[in-house]
Formats: sequence, structure tokens, C-alpha cells
Amino acid sequence: MSLRLRHLTTLEHLPRESIERLLDRAVMLRDACAHGTRKLDQLAGRTVLNLFFEPSTRTRTSFELAARRLGADVINFDIGLSSTSKGEELFDTLHTLEAMHLDAIVVRHKQSGTPEELVRHAMSGVSVINAGDGNRAHPTQGLLDVLTIRQHRPDFSKLVVTICGDVEHSRVARSDVHALTALGAKEIRLCGPASLMPAAGELPQCQRFEDFDQAIAGADAVIMLRLQKERMSDTELPDETAYFRHFGLDKRRLAMAAKGCLVMHPGPLNRGIEIASEVADGAQSRILEQVGNGVFVRMAVLSEMLAR
Amino acid sequence: MSLRLRHLTTLEHLPRESIERLLDRAVMLRDACAHGTRKLDQLAGRTVLNLFFEPSTRTRTSFELAARRLGADVINFDIGLSSTSKGEELFDTLHTLEAMHLDAIVVRHKQSGTPEELVRHAMSGVSVINAGDGNRAHPTQGLLDVLTIRQHRPDFSKLVVTICGDVEHSRVARSDVHALTALGAKEIRLCGPASLMPAAGELPQCQRFEDFDQAIAGADAVIMLRLQKERMSDTELPDETAYFRHFGLDKRRLAMAAKGCLVMHPGPLNRGIEIASEVADGAQSRILEQVGNGVFVRMAVLSEMLAR
Amino acid sequence: MSLRLRHLTTLEHLPRESIERLLDRAVMLRDACAHGTRKLDQLAGRTVLNLFFEPSTRTRTSFELAARRLGADVINFDIGLSSTSKGEELFDTLHTLEAMHLDAIVVRHKQSGTPEELVRHAMSGVSVINAGDGNRAHPTQGLLDVLTIRQHRPDFSKLVVTICGDVEHSRVARSDVHALTALGAKEIRLCGPASLMPAAGELPQCQRFEDFDQAIAGADAVIMLRLQKERMSDTELPDETAYFRHFGLDKRRLAMAAKGCLVMHPGPLNRGIEIASEVADGAQSRILEQVGNGVFVRMAVLSEMLAR
Repeated sequence: MSLRLRHLTTLEHLPRESIERLLDRAVMLRDACAHGTRKLDQLAGRTVLNLFFEPSTRTRTSFELAARRLGADVINFDIGLSSTSKGEELFDTLHTLEAMHLDAIVVRHKQSGTPEELVRHAMSGVSVINAGDGNRAHPTQGLLDVLTIRQHRPDFSKLVVTICGDVEHSRVARSDVHALTALGAKEIRLCGPASLMPAAGELPQCQRFEDFDQAIAGADAVIMLRLQKERMSDTELPDETAYFRHFGLDKRRLAMAAKGCLVMHPGPLNRGIEIASEVADGAQSRILEQVGNGVFVRMAVLSEMLAR
Repeated sequence: MSLRLRHLTTLEHLPRESIERLLDRAVMLRDACAHGTRKLDQLAGRTVLNLFFEPSTRTRTSFELAARRLGADVINFDIGLSSTSKGEELFDTLHTLEAMHLDAIVVRHKQSGTPEELVRHAMSGVSVINAGDGNRAHPTQGLLDVLTIRQHRPDFSKLVVTICGDVEHSRVARSDVHALTALGAKEIRLCGPASLMPAAGELPQCQRFEDFDQAIAGADAVIMLRLQKERMSDTELPDETAYFRHFGLDKRRLAMAAKGCLVMHPGPLNRGIEIASEVADGAQSRILEQVGNGVFVRMAVLSEMLAR
Repeated sequence: MSLRLRHLTTLEHLPRESIERLLDRAVMLRDACAHGTRKLDQLAGRTVLNLFFEPSTRTRTSFELAARRLGADVINFDIGLSSTSKGEELFDTLHTLEAMHLDAIVVRHKQSGTPEELVRHAMSGVSVINAGDGNRAHPTQGLLDVLTIRQHRPDFSKLVVTICGDVEHSRVARSDVHALTALGAKEIRLCGPASLMPAAGELPQCQRFEDFDQAIAGADAVIMLRLQKERMSDTELPDETAYFRHFGLDKRRLAMAAKGCLVMHPGPLNRGIEIASEVADGAQSRILEQVGNGVFVRMAVLSEMLAR
């Protein structure tokens, strides 16, 4: 028996059973919605607060939709306009929000570790859900990625996944690796320019490649990462044409992967930089399926945490 | 039998029956609300997303109220804070939102034609509603204007309407002309400085005037347009005092119109530039009636599109 | 019998019965929520609009939560993005919002007196609630402060309260004084540097101190004010170290107050400037209780105004 989830800050060390239970719950919720149920009332009377210190309308909207479809109220705490501009400290904000009796705080912050700090300082029964912290973790993205893969390749013991691009700056890559590892994926390959790879020793369960042709050979799924220009200094920024030539996914490269290889990307796309439109919009693309699954995975997380 | 509306991007070529059906539905909804029903549940479980690339709290609020009064959930997709600042393309945003299973997207964009482009690229059952694109169309404003006129002057075959001001930059004027034309208005007059009139050949069903005294003579309704300073270059900007003298509506000019001539303006007002306060706040002003009708017209559009 | 509240712009001249009725209602609502009722439907179908011209996520969120827990819809009218940037006048905005049939407008504005101006210009049945205007009034803060005090010190005839800090720029201080006066507090003391005290003659019911040690001696509650740096000119700004030495609350000073003296602060805190962390986070601190009471007081105000 595994315990009910109280917070979700990272997938690292989350047991396989917990991840599978969340994925199963997401599938149940997707089925319920497919059969015409547009809105559930599991979370009626509950309040979820979006606390985004980095802008991200896509992820915020996905969480907002997930919460509302379960009947919860959603408050967007807009930090751009907030009293933090008056110097209020993060933990005072947390305690203030707790004192207002919120049920969950969905937090995104450019500083790695912020969600754990919130958990450590939380005084009440509030749940903290990480919507992305620095380059560290983006657990609901990891969950939606393995859910998308599982639909098409249910046997992870045979699964080869290639994650390509700016791995170092990618919290998506880290959460994907943790989820894939927990579910027993056969092989996880990381590929990217040496300057954009994580430090040696990090993610030891993965094989590393600098040659994308080698990395994609025989892969069942390829997860292309967004070049996070906004997190790089000018000198770190690669030349885009050269980047695409070496690390971009196009038809020619996709043909080297296993038949029917799933094409994935967390979005938003840099078309022509990390991925060619012919592939992003092609028959093997699962990118929009990922987006759809994102709402159901977030419903599953909120439901497990907050439903009575 | 006319088809149920799927999208609403412009009133041009919309058949008279469709427009009248929407107006009748707006009146029904207004009556329901007047009899104490504060909230309907026609759209329970539906989600409407406001996608505003141009700021407009008034129109956004009107759509938000309309959707909520029908029981729908509303998401404000705030572009200022959004991932488009990370270079995401419009159509990727559209497809991402579609993958989240939204029911309708209300879009405002400074580029004329954007709503049609969204319709062309939409892959799912989502409905697109134009809340104003460039200087091209603002269909719900056109509908609320003819609804307001119809309440007071039901016989359009005798109706003379004068539209005065910055016609060239006005999507309101174009949608008004299309709605009035469809409903068989007797005479539509456009008036403004030559530099702010649309190209010769556009809107051929209208008479054109440079002299406001002539244009307003005998009119049953006068629609004053907002001087769209924010869409003009510095050299286009007229001198405000001279503009008011030639094209502003005051008591003296209103007296030349037909008895009880309706005074209308889409808001927000530039008092003393296109309209004098004595007239904007006077007994013949229908400006706040327009605002009230705006909510009901938007309820009607959403209801026709999304109710089961 | 006292009349039902229609607007709430200030606590000045509000009769004791009205204040007590609001506090009693807040307690009832708090009890209802404590017994598991997460959401009431008193205000189903009602719409509350937040019209904040000054940023304040905390207060806005508190009002939003209060309204939603009563079943109302909430619209955030974001002025930063709004048509006021196109020059629309305040009263035109008011009338536009009224024409959309809103039930209450919660307004914050840096100009003292704005809420009263809205009340004067309102044409419909809309209720206006002041969420802070200039340095003049913040009535729901005053109510939540006396509610917090009443829980611990129910007999106001014996109550000594010290309000310390930047009294001149503080709407909180003024609303606190009015509430405490109405409820018959025995003694209200104001303390702060001469340059930050209100003009002689204002708040004549209070005693004034420049020495915080004297002001706090024997106090049952001490309300520390936020140094409103954002409302001061550079020359007005005190040196922070000196300020803390003279007017900051620390353990040593708190020991001079009556036993169990309540420590209060409207937030957000400037730690180390007006209050030491050892006291803000100490056993006598009621700061988070204030935040929690804030939601219930705002529910009480909305409920009295809008429930049928």
C-alpha cells in the first residue's frame, strides 16, 4: 500500500506504484470526460492557487482547467502585480495564503528548490504542487510524458527513449528521466552539445551521446527539448542553424529511429531550431496528445491530493 | 432554415435570419435575467477562453460576464504574461488550447483577419468568436448596436443612420454597416475627414459626407466613433479642437437630426473630442443601453454556439 | 434597528451596532466554515468586480476568496491592461460596469476619497466597497483588526491599544481608530516619529507619543504599521536602522506591554524595520489570525450587502 500524495515537488524517488496510480487515475478521468461528463464535483469547495513567479500561460491554463473541471475554485496570484514588488518575502506570502485556507498552491519559480522550501515552511494542511522550478523538476510534465508513451508502448521493459537538446537547462528532461526510470524503461539516452549536457555524474542511469544520429537509432520515443534561450547567457547561446543541423529533428533523422517512433516536445516549439515543422506536424507527432494528457494528469494529481 | 452558428468572425454576408435570431435570443435572455434569473446553466461544463492580444478590459469583461451567466467557466489567457513572449507562434497556441478541449476562443488581435486564420487552422470543434480584429470587424459590437436601435426603431426600412468619425480605423463602423445592411436599413451615412474615410469603393452601400451638419440632417440614429489615436501615426492625428468643431456631436448638431435621434458610441468616450458631455450624458444617449445589450448579445452568441 | 449596509467606504461614523453586527456575522461564517461547509450559495448569481488601481494581490485575493466562498462570481478588472490606458475616465468606467449589472465593486485607489466619489456617481443598485483609498480608509482591515482583538479581549471598555509607526500615511491606522472608537476602547495611543504623525487635531480621541517605550507600557494590543516607503518621497524616508531602534517592536519592548499583549500587523511585513522576526513569529503574534479573519470579515460585508 502506498500513501496518498500530499505534495508533488519532484518525481525523483517517487515509487513506481505512486506513479502508476496517478497515470491510472488520469486515464479514468479522461474516460469520464470522453463519455460526456464535462465537469466533476470532487473538489467542490476547494481552492487552488496558481503562484507563478515565471510566466507560463500554457501550464497555468492547464492547471486552471484541471482544477475547474474537478469543481474547484482557482485563484491566479499574479506576482507581476503583487505585493512582492513591495518586498514581501516568499514565506510570508506562503503563510498569508495558508491563513486564507487554500487547499493547494501550484508554484513555478526560476529558483530550483523553491517548492521544497515551501513544503518545509508550510504550517497548515496546504498541498504544494511544483509547476516547474529552475532546471530541476517539472513533475506533471514528466507524468504526462510517460502517460503519452504508455498509451502507445505499454511495455516499458522494452522501451528506448532519446531525450535531445538542451538537457542541462531542462527540468522537463530531469522529470522525464525520473519517471522513465521508476517505470523501468530499458534505455534512456541523453543527447546534446557538450556545453548543454548536465554535469558528469548526474543522471547516471542514462547513456550520453553527442551524435544525434547515433542517439536516435532504434529509439521508440524521442523527446525534443526546447532551447531555453531565456535561461542562457549570450555566450551560451548556440548558432541556430548549426544547432538544427546537429541536434534538430527532421524526417531524415526520424527515419533512423524505430518504426513508428513517438515524436514528443514539451512546447512551446522553436520550429526550425530543435524540430522541423514536417516532423512536429507529422503523423508520428504526439505533441498535442501530450497537451491533452497534461490536463488529465493534473486532474489526477489534484484529485488524489484534495478529494475527500 | 438557417444553420446554427459555428464561428463568428464577421457580420459580412451573415444572412438576415441569422442576425435576427441572435437578436431575438438576446432579448429572451435579457427578459430571463429581468425576471430574476441571475444565472443560467445552459453552458455548465463548457469553457470559454479569452485570448486578447490587444488590451480591452471592457469587452473582455463583457464576454466574461456573458459566459459566466450561462454557467460556463472562463479562462483569461493573458498574452502579456504568456509564452508568446518566448516566441510561440499563434497557431501553435491555438492547437495547444484546442488540445486542452476548450469550447470557444474569444479573440482580439490588432491584425485584421486573425480570427479567420484561427478558423482555418482550427483542427477540433472549437468555436472562434471575433472580439475585434484590426480595423476589420467587431461583430458582437455590430449586433449590440442594431439590437439597441431595434428596441427604439423597430422598422429598419425607414431607418436613417449616420456613422461619424474615424471610419477608416473603425472595425465598429464596418460591423455596424454590415448589420444595418443585412437588416435592410433605408440609408447608412458615413461622415468624417477625408483622411479618415475608407478607400473609395469600400462599403458602396453607404453615402459619404464630409459635412457633419448635412450628414446628421434627419438621422434616426447617430453612431459616434472613437478617435483611435492609438492606431494612428503622429502625422495622421488631427488637431482635437478642430476635430470637435467639424465632427464632434453637440446639442446644436443633434437638433438637426430627426426627433428623438438615438445617440450611440461604442466607448470608451473621448469627451470633448468626438462627443460633448451634454450629449453623451443627455436624454437621447443610448450609450449605457449599448453596454447592457452587449452582455446579452454575447450571451446569445455563446448560447447558440455552445448550448446542447 | 440599524439599516442594512449598502456601501462600505469608511468606518468613520458607522454606528457601533453596525460594526458589531458585521463582526457577529463574520464569526457565524467562520463557524460554518469550521464545521466543514466549504462553500455557501448565499450569493449564487451575484457578481463582484475587483477594481484595483493600486496593486495588492493579498487584499484582492482575500476579497476574491470571500466572494467565491459565498457562491458569487468574481471578475478582476485589471487596470494595468485596461482601457483606462486609452484615457477612459473613472466615472465612465463606473457607469460602463454598472450597465453590465454588477452587484458590487471592490475598489482600491491611491487617491483618498475615490470610493465616495464612486458612490456619489453610481446610478444603479451597485454596492461600493473600499479596499483602501490613499491614506484615508481601509474599512475591512479595521473590521478584521477589531474582530481579532475581540476574540482575545472581549471587553473593550478596559482595552488599551497602541498603534505605532507611519501613522500619517496609514489608512489602516485611521480605520482601526474609527473601529476602536465605535466599540468603546478605553485608550487608543498613536506613536511614531513626529514627521510621520497626522496633523494636530486629526484623530483627537487618541493620545500621542514619540517614545515607543512609553506608548507600549501596559498596552493590551499593539498594531505595528508598515513603513509605506512607496508613498514617501526620498527626503521623507527614515534611516531604517534608526527607525527600528526607535519604533521597531522587539522582545524587549513587548515585555513592557500588558501580559499576553496581542501583536498585530496588517502585512506585508518589513522585518527588521518596524518589527523583529522574533516577535512577528512569536507566541503573541496574531498576524496570521488577522489574515484568516480578513476573509471572514469580507464574507460578512458581502453577505450583508448582497444576500437576498
